[in-house]
Amino acid sequence: MTQPAGDGAGPLALLAGGGDFPVELTRILVGRGESLFVAALEGVADPVSFPGADVRMLRLGQVGSLLDELQRRSIRDVVMLGGLPRPSFGALRPELATLKYLPYFARAFRGGDDHLLSRVVRFFEHHGFRVHGPADIAPELAAPVGPLGTRQATEAQRELFLRGFSLLDALSPFDVGQAAILADHRVVAIEAAEGTDAMIERVADLVARRRLRLDKRDGVLVKAPKTGQDLRVDMPAIGPQTLHNVAQAGLAGIALKAGQVLVGDRAGLGRLADELGLFIEGVA
Amino acid sequence: MTQPAGDGAGPLALLAGGGDFPVELTRILVGRGESLFVAALEGVADPVSFPGADVRMLRLGQVGSLLDELQRRSIRDVVMLGGLPRPSFGALRPELATLKYLPYFARAFRGGDDHLLSRVVRFFEHHGFRVHGPADIAPELAAPVGPLGTRQATEAQRELFLRGFSLLDALSPFDVGQAAILADHRVVAIEAAEGTDAMIERVADLVARRRLRLDKRDGVLVKAPKTGQDLRVDMPAIGPQTLHNVAQAGLAGIALKAGQVLVGDRAGLGRLADELGLFIEGVA
Repeated sequence: MTQPAGDGAGPLALLAGGGDFPVELTRILVGRGESLFVAALEGVADPVSFPGADVRMLRLGQVGSLLDELQRRSIRDVVMLGGLPRPSFGALRPELATLKYLPYFARAFRGGDDHLLSRVVRFFEHHGFRVHGPADIAPELAAPVGPLGTRQATEAQRELFLRGFSLLDALSPFDVGQAAILADHRVVAIEAAEGTDAMIERVADLVARRRLRLDKRDGVLVKAPKTGQDLRVDMPAIGPQTLHNVAQAGLAGIALKAGQVLVGDRAGLGRLADELGLFIEGVA
Repeated sequence: MTQPAGDGAGPLALLAGGGDFPVELTRILVGRGESLFVAALEGVADPVSFPGADVRMLRLGQVGSLLDELQRRSIRDVVMLGGLPRPSFGALRPELATLKYLPYFARAFRGGDDHLLSRVVRFFEHHGFRVHGPADIAPELAAPVGPLGTRQATEAQRELFLRGFSLLDALSPFDVGQAAILADHRVVAIEAAEGTDAMIERVADLVARRRLRLDKRDGVLVKAPKTGQDLRVDMPAIGPQTLHNVAQAGLAGIALKAGQVLVGDRAGLGRLADELGLFIEGVA
């Protein structure tokens, strides 16, 4: 995982999906004075969100055009970041230059999301590109070690979230468990296919229906990647909405595996945590 | 875990909560010609549901009366079975003879459900009773090894549910994970505080919203006790509603830890599984 800017490598391409993370990464790289080409995904990324970068909008079905453009620009280093729509294979509307790659991606689509992402990485590597993780390019995008805001976890909360990280570790061999919620001295929710937000909502619902009792300083969300998860294309992430949901559910805070969970704008998230009365903390 | 009827022990008392399980246990014991006293919990158990047994209705607050009654009948062996309401301590309406035990149970209430159950066991043991597990008294109440209906799991389904049991084993040290759902080659849901039915509903919802794709013969529910769970008072259980929910969610079947999950009427459950097109199977 070399940093292309650090060792005299060439220019970098950001394949940008939706959301704030690709925008934040662009801000960081442009701020460093790096030359950046952004291939922004039509329908989810907004071309005006990447000031200082060279932007081109592309559809998912324009892989052929993308490869041509990257070659023309002598770009060998790519980073992929941002939310993707859940595409159906039929909705790709492939251009002519992409048709020859379709059998490759057709196989990838059959295997589900994770498989699709690792296929995409291998596709670019097969074509001679280096695929970098966003946190390798810009470590400040990920949770640091320590609190992001001014609040810190209590000893009891720390004990609870360390138990949560052990739980996620134990789940890793089963390729599941990016997040869990612990409260009332026990594990109250474990994330699988439903996603983090749905899991938080479930806990809020249990509290509302008095199936679960939360004390004021009780309840932590823990989040970490699965072992073996490809952090180049599939980093777990939290954002402002996660904090709002956690506060809404009445939890006390959030613990993240430092360096391995995307937070985007650290300072902004820390301020929001302070406003909401939450701790949010990266754990080594 | 002696069977009181087998070794010349005295008469047995069933402390019956709600649902079909205590009724089924009574049917089995009366069928064996055993003498049975049923202390049925007011509000959840129906006194006419225990033909052949000697029934008395009691409130949760009448522990004192219960102990007196058991002593009068020279009963030293008890089994507890059936659903309990989630009592608030204030709603107990304790009788005079129970007041002296209140401090004991007040401590138990503060610790949550599991703690409460183990307190209840210790309370009866402290007063000289033997507390038996329902499956020790009547093994036919629990899942046998092998299918309950005529359908059997395919090799692919078997591979999936064995992985599920390994997952539940891995969760056990964290005192969580009585059930999980695996489908589409992965773990799609893990039960924590929400309970099995809510977990099944979540998967049904993911399928309905096309967040999860289930093939016709895909998807298994696995259920097992946690390691260290006291099977005398806290056995995991499934019933007809679980089967209906599983069928509704589009899953293929259910795998249960044999001997350790209550099923009640095995034959009836097997017939229902056949009707619904599910496999249901106990696994050693």
